[in-house]
Amino acid sequence: MSFNQPLGGNEMPRFGGPATMMRLPSAADAAGLDACFVGVPLDTATSNRAGARFGPREVRAQSSLLRPFNLGTGAAPFESLQVADVGDVAINTYNVEDSVRRIRLAYQQLLAHRVVPLTIGGDHLITYPILQAIAQKHGPVALVHVDAHADVNDTMFGEKLAHGTPMRRAFEDGLLLPKKTFQIGLRGSGYSPDDFNWSRSRGFTVVTAEECWDSSLEPLMQRVFNRIGDDAAAGMRRALNP
Amino acid sequence: MSFNQPLGGNEMPRFGGPATMMRLPSAADAAGLDACFVGVPLDTATSNRAGARFGPREVRAQSSLLRPFNLGTGAAPFESLQVADVGDVAINTYNVEDSVRRIRLAYQQLLAHRVVPLTIGGDHLITYPILQAIAQKHGPVALVHVDAHADVNDTMFGEKLAHGTPMRRAFEDGLLLPKKTFQIGLRGSGYSPDDFNWSRSRGFTVVTAEECWDSSLEPLMQRVFNRIGDDAAAGMRRALNP
Amino acid sequence: MSFNQPLGGNEMPRFGGPATMMRLPSAADAAGLDACFVGVPLDTATSNRAGARFGPREVRAQSSLLRPFNLGTGAAPFESLQVADVGDVAINTYNVEDSVRRIRLAYQQLLAHRVVPLTIGGDHLITYPILQAIAQKHGPVALVHVDAHADVNDTMFGEKLAHGTPMRRAFEDGLLLPKKTFQIGLRGSGYSPDDFNWSRSRGFTVVTAEECWDSSLEPLMQRVFNRIGDDAAAGMRRALNP
Amino acid sequence: MSFNQPLGGNEMPRFGGPATMMRLPSAADAAGLDACFVGVPLDTATSNRAGARFGPREVRAQSSLLRPFNLGTGAAPFESLQVADVGDVAINTYNVEDSVRRIRLAYQQLLAHRVVPLTIGGDHLITYPILQAIAQKHGPVALVHVDAHADVNDTMFGEKLAHGTPMRRAFEDGLLLPKKTFQIGLRGSGYSPDDFNWSRSRGFTVVTAEECWDSSLEPLMQRVFNRIGDDAAAGMRRALNP
Amino acid sequence: MSFNQPLGGNEMPRFGGPATMMRLPSAADAAGLDACFVGVPLDTATSNRAGARFGPREVRAQSSLLRPFNLGTGAAPFESLQVADVGDVAINTYNVEDSVRRIRLAYQQLLAHRVVPLTIGGDHLITYPILQAIAQKHGPVALVHVDAHADVNDTMFGEKLAHGTPMRRAFEDGLLLPKKTFQIGLRGSGYSPDDFNWSRSRGFTVVTAEECWDSSLEPLMQRVFNRIGDDAAAGMRRALNP
Amino acid sequence: MSFNQPLGGNEMPRFGGPATMMRLPSAADAAGLDACFVGVPLDTATSNRAGARFGPREVRAQSSLLRPFNLGTGAAPFESLQVADVGDVAINTYNVEDSVRRIRLAYQQLLAHRVVPLTIGGDHLITYPILQAIAQKHGPVALVHVDAHADVNDTMFGEKLAHGTPMRRAFEDGLLLPKKTFQIGLRGSGYSPDDFNWSRSRGFTVVTAEECWDSSLEPLMQRVFNRIGDDAAAGMRRALNP
Repeated sequence: MSFNQPLGGNEMPRFGGPATMMRLPSAADAAGLDACFVGVPLDTATSNRAGARFGPREVRAQSSLLRPFNLGTGAAPFESLQVADVGDVAINTYNVEDSVRRIRLAYQQLLAHRVVPLTIGGDHLITYPILQAIAQKHGPVALVHVDAHADVNDTMFGEKLAHGTPMRRAFEDGLLLPKKTFQIGLRGSGYSPDDFNWSRSRGFTVVTAEECWDSSLEPLMQRVFNRIGDDAAAGMRRALNP
Repeated sequence: MSFNQPLGGNEMPRFGGPATMMRLPSAADAAGLDACFVGVPLDTATSNRAGARFGPREVRAQSSLLRPFNLGTGAAPFESLQVADVGDVAINTYNVEDSVRRIRLAYQQLLAHRVVPLTIGGDHLITYPILQAIAQKHGPVALVHVDAHADVNDTMFGEKLAHGTPMRRAFEDGLLLPKKTFQIGLRGSGYSPDDFNWSRSRGFTVVTAEECWDSSLEPLMQRVFNRIGDDAAAGMRRALNP
Repeated sequence: MSFNQPLGGNEMPRFGGPATMMRLPSAADAAGLDACFVGVPLDTATSNRAGARFGPREVRAQSSLLRPFNLGTGAAPFESLQVADVGDVAINTYNVEDSVRRIRLAYQQLLAHRVVPLTIGGDHLITYPILQAIAQKHGPVALVHVDAHADVNDTMFGEKLAHGTPMRRAFEDGLLLPKKTFQIGLRGSGYSPDDFNWSRSRGFTVVTAEECWDSSLEPLMQRVFNRIGDDAAAGMRRALNP
Repeated sequence: MSFNQPLGGNEMPRFGGPATMMRLPSAADAAGLDACFVGVPLDTATSNRAGARFGPREVRAQSSLLRPFNLGTGAAPFESLQVADVGDVAINTYNVEDSVRRIRLAYQQLLAHRVVPLTIGGDHLITYPILQAIAQKHGPVALVHVDAHADVNDTMFGEKLAHGTPMRRAFEDGLLLPKKTFQIGLRGSGYSPDDFNWSRSRGFTVVTAEECWDSSLEPLMQRVFNRIGDDAAAGMRRALNP
Repeated sequence: MSFNQPLGGNEMPRFGGPATMMRLPSAADAAGLDACFVGVPLDTATSNRAGARFGPREVRAQSSLLRPFNLGTGAAPFESLQVADVGDVAINTYNVEDSVRRIRLAYQQLLAHRVVPLTIGGDHLITYPILQAIAQKHGPVALVHVDAHADVNDTMFGEKLAHGTPMRRAFEDGLLLPKKTFQIGLRGSGYSPDDFNWSRSRGFTVVTAEECWDSSLEPLMQRVFNRIGDDAAAGMRRALNP
Repeated sequence: MSFNQPLGGNEMPRFGGPATMMRLPSAADAAGLDACFVGVPLDTATSNRAGARFGPREVRAQSSLLRPFNLGTGAAPFESLQVADVGDVAINTYNVEDSVRRIRLAYQQLLAHRVVPLTIGGDHLITYPILQAIAQKHGPVALVHVDAHADVNDTMFGEKLAHGTPMRRAFEDGLLLPKKTFQIGLRGSGYSPDDFNWSRSRGFTVVTAEECWDSSLEPLMQRVFNRIGDDAAAGMRRALNP
């Protein structure tokens, strides 16, 4: 079997041709794919600057520079995986709640196939409906969440659905395995002396940005791997051989 | 009586000092004001590019260059009117419907005073709740609407509240006097052979951009004035001498 | 028969979905199409600022705002024509001469079908190979060329192929009907007292920018129409009913 | 005699080579020149946004696109005039008063030759010391001043020297012929009902922007020409044949 | 007693509301405040690029993202301090010397209260008049100066007051305790083999950027603390309990 | 003998005066110079984003901030070397092959003098003709190449001359001493499992970006110095004392 390959720079200049992710072929759905790129252009759940709605389009445009082999890690994904770009979820830009429903449905349709979806956002709220669809298929999951903020607010401006609440919603819905949930890189200013206490009290592992500075990240990654490596491998097997 | 004056460029450089509209004083509410500037930083009802949420802040910053007399028209508003900047409406950036409610309430509070509000947006949906508050106080009103689009869609993406629907909502709620409603500057591409038919069929006067090109706008303005000049004068008197 | 329609803003937000021209479907070639959009991302023939290589991509992205009906002219192209976006010509960004060959070949392939191609450039040199392919099929053609410059230099920096030479090359190759060639909008500074003499001496009609200022363009368009209207209609018939 | 010519785009690409005005040769002083370009990078007399200090550099960079003949007017300056770029005046960016002195001295040195200087600014205050040097040599002069503002303030922030005061200073110093002074394009908002009264009361001819809109500028230019055409011609003869 | 709190993101979106520093209340003067933010929009003492005049406005706008607790350090300033934004000093943008006088006077007025001022600049010259006002009240002070440049030039372009001279002026006026003056981060190119010798010869402690690279800054901060920690604590007590 | 000195910021503000490299004098050729700055504004050999054609102009503009002494290293180049800016090579922006020829010729002319040229590019292809001219004079040379890419492709889009091929061309022409060629900083994605094998197989020393991260670069620089320090010193002597 031969796998989809990124359109090469010697066939079409990198500034031309279809602006799909990594210049991979488009696909109408996830049938027959091992992995798929999918865009979720939602940014109406942000509290300050909007614009991530153009994220999927711009990330794809910039990805035209990527070539198939990673010379640092040796990764050669297109030697053994069938990957395509399945386009964007049609979010409802006027209605956050309906967008959450639309994202969940779109991922349920994707996950009806044996695919691993890779998402291009979009603001952080999109994590919640994606986790809903994943947990519906696979049960609660481990999570490695790299972010400046814990996103565990109960509400923002009185709303349950905002870019600062998805991890709380996911916990409440039982979508996460708390002992296998890592929040890495948390930092900055907050509304209370310790905005990270909620995460810790639910059993999440919190690693602040300060703990990451000026030292190798390898021991941290080893801790993560020890805790969830087996799950990840099993999950990947399950995803690709359902 | 002395009236609020814009902070002069010889008292504080134009790049310093409080960035209120035209460098007028701030006011906590509209009490005692003839006119007030108010910002409505909503942009989550737009269909393409967001960013108008920063409109009130940036319009105010740029307005620091304005001086009190208009040398072309002779207008001298601060010789006879008490004007201040009453700040922004606290819209709910995660929820368009709730924002509409919040804007309506904020204008109801402003209009409890004898003030004429001047709005800095924000996307076009904000016109609807502002008209709701105005009509609640004054009854249906004349409207001069200068825009590229008629904004009379029934729904956008299935939603009744979006930046392309406010004139339809206003008509349905009986907030407008159709014979005294002008839509000026309409142009561009549309979803049907004539997107402006709805407006015309309801009695609005439609003046396309093409009709405005390459000729004086004075005859058009005279038409508008003939139709609604008396109403405007009466309305202004009513607003300022309730 | 039903025709391709632009993807509507109520099906997919305008900032999402495939960034084809006017959100039309993609097509692998011109078979079955009445008209096609094609990008030619060449900018290595420019004498000063490059960047038009990103022109096709960016024009497509901005075209997402277009809707199917032109409300000013009444044009409804997608009611009677099958249109799609056939993507970009794979120009050779390191070699102008080879790019000219590649563009000519690509248009020969397109014109093997009964299609009318609509080009998104790219710098002005691309006009030459496009005219080569068109004249090969249809014979010499009328041309309405709207530009600040006549682009009739013999050479630039000693090169025959540059963005200031395509009209001279086209004339020399007999691709144009000089009596039916209009150059409209010429202006600016030049290398000799009258850079436009060459055009006039070959029989082209030159209309400078100064002649267009401050007056209606309708008489000019009528002149153009009187001279080439029959040819254009015949050409269009020939193109679509070969 | 042969005259300096702009460096041609076929000798050096327009993005390369020395960034002098119009790609003319540099000259250490004005000796032997009929006209010279000179930069005055002062912007510390502006009341709001600075940046014109980079004006001379950027205007020169953009001027690389200019070619020697004006195809609209037929002007061919480099057929009969010796022109060069004499560089920038070393203004004192920390001290407006000293900068005025330095500009005046620099123009006195230039005008010791029979040259006509063409200035690239810089903010509007620089007009004052340039007029000082010109009037010292030629006596009071006619002036055609195209601007949005009259620049006739007595002081700004208590200072006599600012970008809004040069025309007042020039009048007070007797540098202008008031009956031959035109201020064209005045508009906007001001500090008093008529900021232009001062100009009119001193005998200047004021033409507001409103008077220029929507009509040919030829009658206005004819008025200017009738009033000062003879002076201009005489002055030019005097400048070039002292 | 309750302290001023930053306006929360759940009361007013961060892109709306008054653009004060950290969204704190405005205050007309420093009465009753423990600390105050004050803007000094001077940039006419810079030698190259201007623009810092907009610094106070833009820093305030960006500060709208800050929340009251620092999750990394545990700092909770608004639990025990009364803080407000007292606005900008009305500098004279046309006259550096008068601006220095105005800044000194403004800080003398602020320091007539028991407040600690926190300044948003502005170019580096503003340090000099601020130190004048501080030393007038408290006597010579310790200084921790983090900068690429020592700012100890005698003159720039012949001027005593420029953004490269404030530390020299402060030393000459006896405003500093040289043994307790640290200049940290000095680097770059200079006018003589060692531009930092002047600082060292006056007893300042100079720490170059090279000494800071690739190592923890804690030992350096400990050195600073050992030398001036007691003074700082005493000074803070004195400032807040005069 | 006295050496050229950068124009000081106390003689002419840094935003004014001629925009030569480091504000050094211009020179028509390299006669009498120890080192010269030369611009090569070629960017038509790039595979994605163009713009480096403006590199020489912009690097010079920004270099106006440099002063003659490096306070970190103690370097004082203008105490013992005669340096000037010899301007730009007139590349042919429409023809990569001719540009390579022009660059080679320009460097042959420079190297007819005893000068060390310092180049401001421009894209990476320019290294090839520069090395041609250098090797013609000095024989094969050592090379320290710091880049993300090895630039050792055989062809790009079928072309031998492109920004990804110069090191291969240089090797093939025998311009390099492979054992004394270092490629430092290589990283990223590639077209094959190991794009760096070609370099290694020819004897180049490859140091990937990963090997440079999180550690001192001094041991690496010591390795380079041990291998080519003697050659560099000899080459410098040869260049300056031919």
